[in-house]
Amino acid sequence: MPYLLNAWYVAAYSEEVTREPLARTLLDIPVVFYRTETGEPVALLDRCPHRFAPLSLGKLDGDDLVCGYHGLRFGRAGSCTHNPHSPDSIPKNARVTAFPVAERFGHVWFWPGDPARADIAQLPAEFGFLDEPEKYRNVKGYLHVKAHYQLIVDNLLDLSHAPFLHPHFAVKGMTPEEQLRAVTAKLVRESNRITAYRLRSGVPPNRPTVDIFGFSQDPVDSRSHMTWYPPALLYLDIGTCVAGTPESEGLCMPAAHFITPETERTSHYFFSQTRNMRIHDPEVDIQLAKVFDTAFRLQDEPMIEAVQSRMGAATDIFALNPVLLSADAPPVSARRLLDRLIAEEHGQAPASAAE
Amino acid sequence: MPYLLNAWYVAAYSEEVTREPLARTLLDIPVVFYRTETGEPVALLDRCPHRFAPLSLGKLDGDDLVCGYHGLRFGRAGSCTHNPHSPDSIPKNARVTAFPVAERFGHVWFWPGDPARADIAQLPAEFGFLDEPEKYRNVKGYLHVKAHYQLIVDNLLDLSHAPFLHPHFAVKGMTPEEQLRAVTAKLVRESNRITAYRLRSGVPPNRPTVDIFGFSQDPVDSRSHMTWYPPALLYLDIGTCVAGTPESEGLCMPAAHFITPETERTSHYFFSQTRNMRIHDPEVDIQLAKVFDTAFRLQDEPMIEAVQSRMGAATDIFALNPVLLSADAPPVSARRLLDRLIAEEHGQAPASAAE
Amino acid sequence: MPYLLNAWYVAAYSEEVTREPLARTLLDIPVVFYRTETGEPVALLDRCPHRFAPLSLGKLDGDDLVCGYHGLRFGRAGSCTHNPHSPDSIPKNARVTAFPVAERFGHVWFWPGDPARADIAQLPAEFGFLDEPEKYRNVKGYLHVKAHYQLIVDNLLDLSHAPFLHPHFAVKGMTPEEQLRAVTAKLVRESNRITAYRLRSGVPPNRPTVDIFGFSQDPVDSRSHMTWYPPALLYLDIGTCVAGTPESEGLCMPAAHFITPETERTSHYFFSQTRNMRIHDPEVDIQLAKVFDTAFRLQDEPMIEAVQSRMGAATDIFALNPVLLSADAPPVSARRLLDRLIAEEHGQAPASAAE
Repeated sequence: MPYLLNAWYVAAYSEEVTREPLARTLLDIPVVFYRTETGEPVALLDRCPHRFAPLSLGKLDGDDLVCGYHGLRFGRAGSCTHNPHSPDSIPKNARVTAFPVAERFGHVWFWPGDPARADIAQLPAEFGFLDEPEKYRNVKGYLHVKAHYQLIVDNLLDLSHAPFLHPHFAVKGMTPEEQLRAVTAKLVRESNRITAYRLRSGVPPNRPTVDIFGFSQDPVDSRSHMTWYPPALLYLDIGTCVAGTPESEGLCMPAAHFITPETERTSHYFFSQTRNMRIHDPEVDIQLAKVFDTAFRLQDEPMIEAVQSRMGAATDIFALNPVLLSADAPPVSARRLLDRLIAEEHGQAPASAAE
Repeated sequence: MPYLLNAWYVAAYSEEVTREPLARTLLDIPVVFYRTETGEPVALLDRCPHRFAPLSLGKLDGDDLVCGYHGLRFGRAGSCTHNPHSPDSIPKNARVTAFPVAERFGHVWFWPGDPARADIAQLPAEFGFLDEPEKYRNVKGYLHVKAHYQLIVDNLLDLSHAPFLHPHFAVKGMTPEEQLRAVTAKLVRESNRITAYRLRSGVPPNRPTVDIFGFSQDPVDSRSHMTWYPPALLYLDIGTCVAGTPESEGLCMPAAHFITPETERTSHYFFSQTRNMRIHDPEVDIQLAKVFDTAFRLQDEPMIEAVQSRMGAATDIFALNPVLLSADAPPVSARRLLDRLIAEEHGQAPASAAE
Repeated sequence: MPYLLNAWYVAAYSEEVTREPLARTLLDIPVVFYRTETGEPVALLDRCPHRFAPLSLGKLDGDDLVCGYHGLRFGRAGSCTHNPHSPDSIPKNARVTAFPVAERFGHVWFWPGDPARADIAQLPAEFGFLDEPEKYRNVKGYLHVKAHYQLIVDNLLDLSHAPFLHPHFAVKGMTPEEQLRAVTAKLVRESNRITAYRLRSGVPPNRPTVDIFGFSQDPVDSRSHMTWYPPALLYLDIGTCVAGTPESEGLCMPAAHFITPETERTSHYFFSQTRNMRIHDPEVDIQLAKVFDTAFRLQDEPMIEAVQSRMGAATDIFALNPVLLSADAPPVSARRLLDRLIAEEHGQAPASAAE
C-alpha cells in the first residue's frame, strides 16, 4: 500500500528545527530540515544531486545549505545557488526537491505531495488547544516505533484495549470487563474523519484521576473520544466531570497523537497530553509523564512491535485475515477511508482487503 | 527442504514450562507453552487471531490463556472461550492452532504434524535412562545454535571429528590419527534409525575418564555408539570398561542430544549427559559440566556456525557437492532416510542431492 | 558490475601474514593466508571441500594447513596431502583453490584471476618509496569502510573535496573557495592509469606543513598529484617546495592508498603516508597519525558511508544519474577505463552508465 502523499505529516517538534540541519526520514524519503535566518522552516531532500552526500552533514550559510563534501550550495527552494568549483557554471540539473513545510501547533509539518495543494490551514482546528499553554498545560513525548504506522492508528482508534494493556488506568475495584461494560461507544463516520466516542457513566473515576487530581470515588462521566484525520493525525478528547455538569467545568485533558511513517516498518510517534487542572504544578507534570510513559512506551510500544513481528513480511494486517470484533469498527472504518483516499490519489478505485 | 512434520520435537525442558507462558519458535512456528492447573502442558500458536498479539504476552486464568491486548480468552484446545467485548458473541473463526504436546523423559515434546498420528509412546525407549536419576546422574544444558539443524546432526553422527576438534578428550600420548586408527567403526541402517558404532579397544582411556573417574592407564574398551532417530533425536551410548568385562560393570555415560529447528538457520540444542559412577559427587557434576561445555559450546558450536556461514545462502550442504569421506557414511545415511520420510509426507518420491 | 579479476589486490600488511592462519574476505571470496616455514605467503580458499569448515580455524603443520574439524591436510598448492581417516585414499576432488599471492612494498598481494597471468612485476614502480624507510618514514593505517570500493576511489581522485571536508588542511586565512581557485588542475589519461595533477602556487603552505614541518607563511608550490591504477591502487605525490626550487629539495610526502573490495558494500582500505623530513622524530609520527586519522577515519569514512547509504540498494552511483562537475573528470575517466577492462575480461564491449 503506497502512502497518502497529499497530506500533512508531522516532521518534528518546533524546537527540534534550528540553525543546525536536522536529518529525518519520512515516508522513506531522507529529508533535511533547518530554519532560515528569519526563522522559517525549510525542508529539502537530504541528498546532494552531485555525489549523494547527505546535505544534513553540511552547514548553513545565511539561508543556504552548503554541502559538506564538495561545497555546492542550495537555496531554500532547492536550486543550486553556487558552485565553488566553477562559479560561473551551475549545472542545470543541480537541484534538490524542496518540500512544502509549515509550522503550526508547536510542530513542523511536511507535505510530500503536490506543492500546489499544500495548505496548512487545512489542519483540523481541534488541535488549537496546543497553542493555549495558559489554559492547557502540555506534557509531551516522542517514540520511535518499529511497526507500520497503521498499527499505531489501530491501537488508538480502539481504546477497548486499555483495561487489558493499561491496568494502571483501572477504576478501583472493577475488573477489565466491568469497565468495558460501563462504556457506551459510538462510531461517527464523516467524509474526512472518523470519531470513536467512548463515554463511561455512573462509575467512579479511574486511578490517575483520583490519585493526581484528587477526585472522590463518586460516580462521574468519563469520556475518551478519539477523532482520526487521515492519514494519521489523532485528536483525543479525554475528560472527567460530575454527571450532569458541563464538561468544561470538569477535568479536560485534550491530547494529540501524530504518527508519521518513517519506513514501511518504522514510525515516528509524537504525542502531546494536556490538562486544564493544576497546570502550574510541576509535580503533576512528573506524575502524568510517568503515567503516560508507562502506557505508551512500556505497554503500547512493545505490544505494537510484537504484532508487527508476528505479521512476518507483511505490512497490512488486513491482508492476513484477522478476526474482527465489534471494537474494531473505528480502525476498520479509518482504513477503508484511507484506502479510498490513496486509491483516488492514484486515479484508481479502492481495492482494500478491509473493504 | 521442508521439515518432517509428523514427528516429535523437543520444545523445552519440563521445568521451563510453568504457569507463566513460555514463547518459543519451533520449525518457524511461534508457539506458546504453559501448564494447566493440574500440570498438563499446552501448546498453542502464539498469535491471537484478532490483532496478532503474541498470546505469550498474556496471562493465565485457570486453564485458559487471556490475550494481553484485548482480553480474548483461549482454551487449551485453541478455541476462543470468551470475548469480553461482546460476551454472547464469539467469532466463529476465533481460534488458534492447538498442537499435540506431551511430556516424557524430562522434556516437553511438540508435534507439528497431523494430530491423529501423534503418539508419545513412539518415542524410542532408549531414552528411558533419563528417567532413572538414581542410576544415571544427569548434567544437562541448552545451546542456541545459529545453523541448520542437520549440520548439528551431521556433527554428532560423525564423531571422527573429536580427536581434531576436542583435544581435551585425547588419550594421553596418542596423536589424533593414532586414536582414529584404534577405532573399529560400524554403520547399521534400520528402517527407522541409523547407528554409528565406534569401539576403541586396547588403548588407555581418554583423559576425562582418567582424571575424573580415576581409571588407570591400562587398556580398556571405549565405546561411543550414536543412534539417530529422525528427524533429530540422538542417543549416545558412551562407556568404558576393562576388556572382556561386561559393559554394565564399567563406566556408563548414556547421553541424549535432541535438536529442534527454530528457523532454517537457527536451532535449539538440548543435551543431557549422564553417568553411572560417582553419581552423588557434586564436584564431578562441575567437572563434567566444564568438559562438555568446552566441547559443545566452545568447540562444536563455533565450528558448526562457521560451516553455516561458509554455506552462504544455502541450507543444504549436500546441494553444494562436498567431498565425502568414509566417516561421512552415517550422516549421509541419515540424510537419505530423512529425505525419504519428508518426501513420503508430501506424497513424492525422494530427490535428495545425497541420494 | 563484476570485479576485475586479472589484477593484484592488497590482502594484508606483510606483518599480518604469519604462521597463524589469517582469515580475510576479498572480492566476496573467503581466503586464508599463512606463511610457509621459509616465510613465503600462501593464499587458499578458506573452506574445506569436505564439510566447509573454514581452514583458518585449523593449524599449520610444516607448510601444510590442517583442517580443525576432521584433520584433512592441504598443501600450499591447494591439494589434499593427507586424509587421516583413510591414509591411502585421498578423494580426487579434495582440493581447495590456491590463489597467486606475492609480497611487495610491505604488503601481501592477492590475484583472484587467471594464475598464468599473475606477474608481481606488473605492480607500478612508483610504490617503490614504500621500500625506502631510510628516505621515507612511513605512518600507515587500515580502515574497514562500509561502502563500495569505487566510492573510495572517487573520493581520492577528486581532492577538490578537501577544502570542505578537511578544514584542518586549510591554508591560514583562505576560504575553501580561495584555496580551490589557487589550484591548477590537469587530467592525464594513459592506457593503464589516470593521473589527476593538482598544483597550488603562490600561496602559503597548509596548516600541517607549517605546524609540523616549520614552514613559514611565504608562498610555496604545493602539489597533490593522484595517480590511479586499475582497479584501486592509488599513488599520491604530495609535496611542498619554495617556488622555483626542485621538488626533491622540499617536503616530499608520497603516499599509497590501496583499496580492496571485501564485498559489494564493504572495503578494505590500506594507506601509507610517508615523509622525507624529520623522519627520525617520533613526535612527528604522532602528529601526522592524528592529522590523517582525522581526515581518513573521522571525515572521509563517515562521508563515504553516508553516500553509500543514500544510494539505497544500488552499488553503482553512476547508474543513479548524479550531477557531474568539472572536478569529477578524473573519477569518471577512471570508471570508464575500469569498465572497459572488466568488459574485456568478459569478452564484451563496455556498457557503462558513465560512458
